[in-house]
Amino acid sequence: MKIKCAIVGYGNIGKSIEKLVVKDEDFDLVGIFSRREPSTLKSPYQTVFYYQNMLLDDRFCGIDVVFLCVGSAFDLQETAFKVATRFSSVDSFDTHAKMGSYVRDLDAIAKMSGTLAIVGCGWDPGIFSLQRALFDAIMPEVKPQTFWGKGVSQGHSEAIRRIEGVKYATQYTVPKDDAVKRARHGETCFDARDKHERICYVVPDYQAYYGDSEVSEEQKEKLQKIIRDKIVNMPDYFSEYDTAVHFVDEAEYFENHTKMSHAGKVIAVEKQNPKDDSAKSIAEFSLELDSNPDFTAQVMVAYARANYRLQSQGETGAKTILDVPITALLKSDDNLKYI
Amino acid sequence: MKIKCAIVGYGNIGKSIEKLVVKDEDFDLVGIFSRREPSTLKSPYQTVFYYQNMLLDDRFCGIDVVFLCVGSAFDLQETAFKVATRFSSVDSFDTHAKMGSYVRDLDAIAKMSGTLAIVGCGWDPGIFSLQRALFDAIMPEVKPQTFWGKGVSQGHSEAIRRIEGVKYATQYTVPKDDAVKRARHGETCFDARDKHERICYVVPDYQAYYGDSEVSEEQKEKLQKIIRDKIVNMPDYFSEYDTAVHFVDEAEYFENHTKMSHAGKVIAVEKQNPKDDSAKSIAEFSLELDSNPDFTAQVMVAYARANYRLQSQGETGAKTILDVPITALLKSDDNLKYI
Repeated sequence: MKIKCAIVGYGNIGKSIEKLVVKDEDFDLVGIFSRREPSTLKSPYQTVFYYQNMLLDDRFCGIDVVFLCVGSAFDLQETAFKVATRFSSVDSFDTHAKMGSYVRDLDAIAKMSGTLAIVGCGWDPGIFSLQRALFDAIMPEVKPQTFWGKGVSQGHSEAIRRIEGVKYATQYTVPKDDAVKRARHGETCFDARDKHERICYVVPDYQAYYGDSEVSEEQKEKLQKIIRDKIVNMPDYFSEYDTAVHFVDEAEYFENHTKMSHAGKVIAVEKQNPKDDSAKSIAEFSLELDSNPDFTAQVMVAYARANYRLQSQGETGAKTILDVPITALLKSDDNLKYI
Repeated sequence: MKIKCAIVGYGNIGKSIEKLVVKDEDFDLVGIFSRREPSTLKSPYQTVFYYQNMLLDDRFCGIDVVFLCVGSAFDLQETAFKVATRFSSVDSFDTHAKMGSYVRDLDAIAKMSGTLAIVGCGWDPGIFSLQRALFDAIMPEVKPQTFWGKGVSQGHSEAIRRIEGVKYATQYTVPKDDAVKRARHGETCFDARDKHERICYVVPDYQAYYGDSEVSEEQKEKLQKIIRDKIVNMPDYFSEYDTAVHFVDEAEYFENHTKMSHAGKVIAVEKQNPKDDSAKSIAEFSLELDSNPDFTAQVMVAYARANYRLQSQGETGAKTILDVPITALLKSDDNLKYI
């Protein structure tokens, strides 16, 4: 098998995917596509084209799977709908609250176009979704609890960066220790605020915002207030959490807040008796990641392999990670070695 | 959906399955089938029939899924092959080394008969197999490490019980702490003996073995030696491990060795650089089970639901847990809630 693939969006995840597919003999990277001016982007491995070319240029009609790596919150849905009219794709769409309508709309387009989109192929949504569903299937009376962090959420950082007047931003998701302990004893009644806090480090772009190289302290404070309000009230991303926003200068930002590590766990505790503390079964899945985008890229590459396999079986439409059997992900056909 | 099901084998797992299906509105328990004389077995919920009746009596031709709960090591394969000629099934076959030939032979029979068998639906083989394959798909350069215990292995205990002269037996699998630590630092070169020891508590049946109520100390020692040799040299089960065999009397056995708890973990560590100690990604899945047969039964019931769904999609043959998408296991159709 040789899977002709393309990367749309050349940020962290796009670059991580590129590194993986160029060294994987199953993949042939046809091109990298971006909305940005290609000459401003340099790839060590492949030509960067304008995104529009992928959809219009017949040279690219043989692409088997497109890796959609554009910023999730705002651009991904629109790009996915357009790409699905011609190509199969994998993405790591990560807005839990919008997943339902996204999958329904994409499914209709992909089915009509005879393409296959596998959505939410990261670790959460993604591998964690798989674990939650598995735990629920086996322990139906249990409500699996998910904790994220401490780590940088790319989706949330990106959402802040899209606010006017923000130059750089990093958002740390931090689990509350007490809640993790309670979850391991089988407690399941938490609201979003009980389990995590969100800590944001933001570098404002005062000059660009005010169109002036001279910006007063008062103007700075005003912009900070505007940004803070937009962050803490942002639905789906921040409004349901305790969110702290710190403004820092560029030097401090690059010194301390550019690592992309992350972590998380899914805990399911089945009790013998709901009233006592003794557990009947405890299942726990955890990840600790030095590089969130690298790991997300690894998941996307595995599901791209599955996408290619399922296409060859005639599958079309939009699927989530729950719809894909693990066999479809594997490089080798010797599945029995895992049993 | 109302899944007509039957239980073959009325030991620990069979009884655990019975408790689950009678309270699950999706299942209708048609009967319990055993090789033992039905009048010696009492079910609080359903009639116990001779196993042969299931295959011969037209009353039972509407069974959708058979839970195969007979002792794995010796009887399960033969039973599965016969059942597959008429019925679809799930089992928790657990001899890793024989899985390949079992799946191939069962696949041929089931395909010819238009039935669907899902094999190895426990936690290992089973949920752990799923995690190993998933880790390998996402982190292809990593060799996931599995640890079992401390806990009772039903398969190994049963294997001991089948030895002539054994009345009761319990086998504890115990992971070696040092090996777990090394695995969490990314070490992957272990042989079976490095990772676990096997500790067996056995009550011999001297009177039955010698056919005499008067048994000398010498005769006792002789039988103990025979049993010990058969255990430690048993291929697949014990021969590759450090195995300790302790002989105890009935009172001590029932006091201390009849719990059925178990535990285990699968660890996958991806390194930045194979030569240093720093991990790039760590994935870990763990289970702690108060009752191994109860949890195994829960897995089998989930895969019985999947079996029924996949049958309705025209699937036949023998499948492992890797071939079944998680969606097929779920009670609800609202899969997006897990994403």
